[in-house]
Amino acid sequence: MVEITTLLQVLQKDIKRVNETISQDIDELETVHDDQLIEILRYGLLGGGKRIRPLLTIICGRLCGYSADDIFKLATAFEYLHAATLFHDDVIDQANTRRGQPSVYKAYGLDAAILAGDFLHARSMEIIGTYGGVECLKIFCRATSTIANGEFLQLRNTKNYNQSEEDYLQTIEGKTALFISAATEIGAMVGSADKAQRFALAEYGRNLGYGFQIVDDLLDYQGNADKTGKATGNDLIEGKMTLPLILAIHQADNEDRQRLLTIVQDKKEREESFEEIYNLIEKYNGFQLTRKKAEYFIKEAIRNLQGFSNENENISILKALGEYVLAREK
Amino acid sequence: MVEITTLLQVLQKDIKRVNETISQDIDELETVHDDQLIEILRYGLLGGGKRIRPLLTIICGRLCGYSADDIFKLATAFEYLHAATLFHDDVIDQANTRRGQPSVYKAYGLDAAILAGDFLHARSMEIIGTYGGVECLKIFCRATSTIANGEFLQLRNTKNYNQSEEDYLQTIEGKTALFISAATEIGAMVGSADKAQRFALAEYGRNLGYGFQIVDDLLDYQGNADKTGKATGNDLIEGKMTLPLILAIHQADNEDRQRLLTIVQDKKEREESFEEIYNLIEKYNGFQLTRKKAEYFIKEAIRNLQGFSNENENISILKALGEYVLAREK
Repeated sequence: MVEITTLLQVLQKDIKRVNETISQDIDELETVHDDQLIEILRYGLLGGGKRIRPLLTIICGRLCGYSADDIFKLATAFEYLHAATLFHDDVIDQANTRRGQPSVYKAYGLDAAILAGDFLHARSMEIIGTYGGVECLKIFCRATSTIANGEFLQLRNTKNYNQSEEDYLQTIEGKTALFISAATEIGAMVGSADKAQRFALAEYGRNLGYGFQIVDDLLDYQGNADKTGKATGNDLIEGKMTLPLILAIHQADNEDRQRLLTIVQDKKEREESFEEIYNLIEKYNGFQLTRKKAEYFIKEAIRNLQGFSNENENISILKALGEYVLAREK
Repeated sequence: MVEITTLLQVLQKDIKRVNETISQDIDELETVHDDQLIEILRYGLLGGGKRIRPLLTIICGRLCGYSADDIFKLATAFEYLHAATLFHDDVIDQANTRRGQPSVYKAYGLDAAILAGDFLHARSMEIIGTYGGVECLKIFCRATSTIANGEFLQLRNTKNYNQSEEDYLQTIEGKTALFISAATEIGAMVGSADKAQRFALAEYGRNLGYGFQIVDDLLDYQGNADKTGKATGNDLIEGKMTLPLILAIHQADNEDRQRLLTIVQDKKEREESFEEIYNLIEKYNGFQLTRKKAEYFIKEAIRNLQGFSNENENISILKALGEYVLAREK
């Protein structure tokens, strides 16, 4: 298997090209669009980011024999839509920072964050239609609708303090997993994947997406804010029930469960009791069990690749990406 | 020419089918989507609305020989995207009412209004791709990007108290005219329009859109809130510079111009001085000149139809729609 450090070197070239493609597209948009919109696009799209979604499209496209240059254009659509959801999420969560800098919401205001998100939304669909055709567009739009649906579920579950692991998984499927699945499936579709390969890569993406989001939710408790670029403990403060907390509530004895539920139901308590919650989660192995769950999904993702040749470099990269998702600190 | 009352009867059947198509689509979405999202879709999409955009697609499609049933499905995309922009606009403007009832923003909150807008955004693109194909999608996405761009321009122009008629026209082109133009052009495209016909109908839509928005801005000053379903004087309070005010500022003598500029630059003054502003606009013929401008665009729109046979019932309807736009009170 490719080592993660080697992997990042291999991918560095692709990441650079993704960034260049985005940068060129904004330059072209600049000729006929509002200056402030352009400024926000540069700010929100070129200020870092792991580019995991476009990379997946590119690698799956390559794996399935598609090597034309326009795969980079197609792939940017995933970064655009991802950015659009971040712009809107930061409005909804009133988040001040993103990727270590002020969020678009904070830096440019609510109005601009909503409108720039809408703009990227439309632009991403135009790109998918242009470079992928109607079939890819349907997959993409459905994944997009599912994101909004998943966020609704999350909104509703925010007040559901006694939710199950299944509730949580359903939410992150909509919010993250199906969109990452669209990135891998559309890569397969523009290549010459057969039906089984397309399905396998879509499933790989879905499982990788679960793992990715679960690790994200772990990092919200355990991450180093300097590395993640986001403040720690945000989810708890916002009342978002993620897996470490859900598992702890289910494992805890009566007294501790009552204490956990008391804290999560009160905004002020949530803001003040991060350390207490953290220790209770630790006491009931919430972090460890959560990590095991992420490992399970990554194992599943890698299992989905069994039908492809192990000799193929792209398969090695997809497997290594699974390891990267588990190891990542940001 | 078809009389407006006859027109509304002719169109009533189509409006009913548009409403039924939307209602059926929501019923289908209900099986796999969050209950609250579905509730908001019904609330925001089935609570009235003139349906002018889908009607234009249907009539232009018919005019160009397209009579298949799925034109109604295609046409709903325009109502969906329109609703999506209203959901987001009402967040941006913090508008409490829309179509005579609490806005989605007011009734369901900021989070839900943003997410439901995003959902409809994606759904509209999926519908256009499915029933219109990639070429229609490109027109649709470009018009959508242009709406966001136009709103940015409007945001920036909100603080530009000395803007010209051209600034205003550029804003409403992006905000309204090009999207209505997409509705007529896509109707032509799914029919068998030749290039000249397609262009003529796109231009008809653009000019009609200008007229429509100018009348909208007039109604914001002169409308009857019971009929429009929106409070009067909103634009002024929000500091939005629309044509009646812009023309008055340009026509006014030095003293009155200073007074107008003093009022519009101060939020508190704007909230308290609606009557004074109204009278000053009246003094300098701002309303009359604005109406003349709307009439000019409607005349242009009707001129764009010259290449079609006057015998065709659909042409009569398109012409009558121009008259309707001028006569409408809501």
